[in-house]
Amino acid sequence: MTGPYAVHAGGRDAVALDAMGGDHGPAETVAGAVAARREHGVPVVLVGREPDLARELAVHDAVGEIPVVHAPDVVPMTERGVGGAALPASSLAVGCGLLGAGEAAAFVSAGSTGAVVAQAVRLVGRAEGVLRPALGVALPTLPGGASVLVDAGATADPTPEMMAQFALLGAGYARAVLDVPDPVAGLLSIGSEPGKGNRLARRAEELLRGLPMRFHGNIEGDDVLSGAVDVIVTDGFTGNVVLKNVEGCVRTALAMVARAGLAEPGALARVARRYDPQTHGGAALLGLRGTVIVAHGSSTAATVARACAVAHSLSSLEPV
Amino acid sequence: MTGPYAVHAGGRDAVALDAMGGDHGPAETVAGAVAARREHGVPVVLVGREPDLARELAVHDAVGEIPVVHAPDVVPMTERGVGGAALPASSLAVGCGLLGAGEAAAFVSAGSTGAVVAQAVRLVGRAEGVLRPALGVALPTLPGGASVLVDAGATADPTPEMMAQFALLGAGYARAVLDVPDPVAGLLSIGSEPGKGNRLARRAEELLRGLPMRFHGNIEGDDVLSGAVDVIVTDGFTGNVVLKNVEGCVRTALAMVARAGLAEPGALARVARRYDPQTHGGAALLGLRGTVIVAHGSSTAATVARACAVAHSLSSLEPV
Repeated sequence: MTGPYAVHAGGRDAVALDAMGGDHGPAETVAGAVAARREHGVPVVLVGREPDLARELAVHDAVGEIPVVHAPDVVPMTERGVGGAALPASSLAVGCGLLGAGEAAAFVSAGSTGAVVAQAVRLVGRAEGVLRPALGVALPTLPGGASVLVDAGATADPTPEMMAQFALLGAGYARAVLDVPDPVAGLLSIGSEPGKGNRLARRAEELLRGLPMRFHGNIEGDDVLSGAVDVIVTDGFTGNVVLKNVEGCVRTALAMVARAGLAEPGALARVARRYDPQTHGGAALLGLRGTVIVAHGSSTAATVARACAVAHSLSSLEPV
Repeated sequence: MTGPYAVHAGGRDAVALDAMGGDHGPAETVAGAVAARREHGVPVVLVGREPDLARELAVHDAVGEIPVVHAPDVVPMTERGVGGAALPASSLAVGCGLLGAGEAAAFVSAGSTGAVVAQAVRLVGRAEGVLRPALGVALPTLPGGASVLVDAGATADPTPEMMAQFALLGAGYARAVLDVPDPVAGLLSIGSEPGKGNRLARRAEELLRGLPMRFHGNIEGDDVLSGAVDVIVTDGFTGNVVLKNVEGCVRTALAMVARAGLAEPGALARVARRYDPQTHGGAALLGLRGTVIVAHGSSTAATVARACAVAHSLSSLEPV
């Protein structure tokens, strides 16, 4: 290491990983970085406390194999939004800074969503014309594909204009990640008829009808997993509540099946995993000047590795 | 019949049932009224097109057993909000009018929620001091009890003050229907820490902390079925999206289990029924000067009967 912010060889093409983020960092994050490199061929730069990372790398016999950028501070998981700004030497801020400075191709963190959003907007910056970033999460649908829920929690109080942009950002994600050539968007509301919703949704619906993309109209809460549309547009408050509600309801339904003795728990766990947003590489923070992935706070090594792989493939695409 | 609006004997203590409402009215509604009377001992007055109701009553050999109030018009299921006002002789308006005039003890409809809310506010009226009514729905929780989701869709754009009242209305429901002596409320938001949420939720949280009742703080979307609180407070937009999302997610999770061949479909259907809001007697429109229950549009006879029984027992309680 030549200095606390120096990147080892190969950094510019690498995914910067916040190795201290998440409930299980740095053990699972370092294991994930090793797996990303060895199993997915994705170059990763670890950002965090150098002594901790050296110790974890030694566990995997990977010292020297994965570059490390030292960042002495850690943003606590309870910190949302403002915390990172007070900790410019945190793994979160340093990692975002690497991406913003062009020293990394993408950034992945399992830290708190609010803190990642705040730091990414500050240090990576918004793409031209984008009012506010949005979190896009791919939810597996019953027919077998996936729908992008956008915004899943980056902007709790968007304007209708921001929500119209969310549709375009989500469509970009659907094309790039889900291989949907001509995505159709739907607005999450409380009635499928035109004009139904709260004030925000009703105004957003008008704007969505004027966008240069396919718009299905309004959908309701029971369409979130039905595959009715490719892009589910909503504000970040409703989107985050729905995202967590999906997790909770699927878990509850499967627990009820297990409790009734109808199926073997291990087999049910495999079904549950399909609906775990973790499985799909985390949430993409859309609308920035670089690729940022927010992995689930409870991410395991396999999830971190997958998030790094998604980040790497997204970073090589044209900006949406 | 002495006239189109006259109630037969026993009307004042009876539940007025919108016999034309719902996807399966009047066949299922009349069958439900018969079941309510014969199986639950609940007196019901049918409101709707007299010839249609006489025909259906004959099917059950119940002509003369269940009183009928003639109402020539029907509010279409697609009509939300304003429609009923243009149809003062609809089964919906006439039924609400019976309750408002003290000619019935409660009103049950499987018609469109928006239309029922609009007519009930107009013809039954708000309870003293109540700013806006709210829909309360009892959601079964994993531990085995239930949580009241309020507002599940009556008021899409409430003020924070209205949301604080929703907590009190929901607590009244929890005491009366769920037998919870000292209910605890939680605010549905996007972070469990104080101060997390959109502008509306953050302001509502401040007001909820000042209420003369137990407040748990914020809960997230994955707590909706966890039984963390007795009363889940939210705005009617988020609440309605969540209510339908619960239905969709439980259905999807069980369909995945069935598709994986892990359990027998019939047994899974019994689990699904536990999470069907219909099972629990419909949604109560809280904050009015009388008991109004909105049953699911797809209600069957058994569901209608249960909604009548819930309405009857709620109507005999002190106002909340």
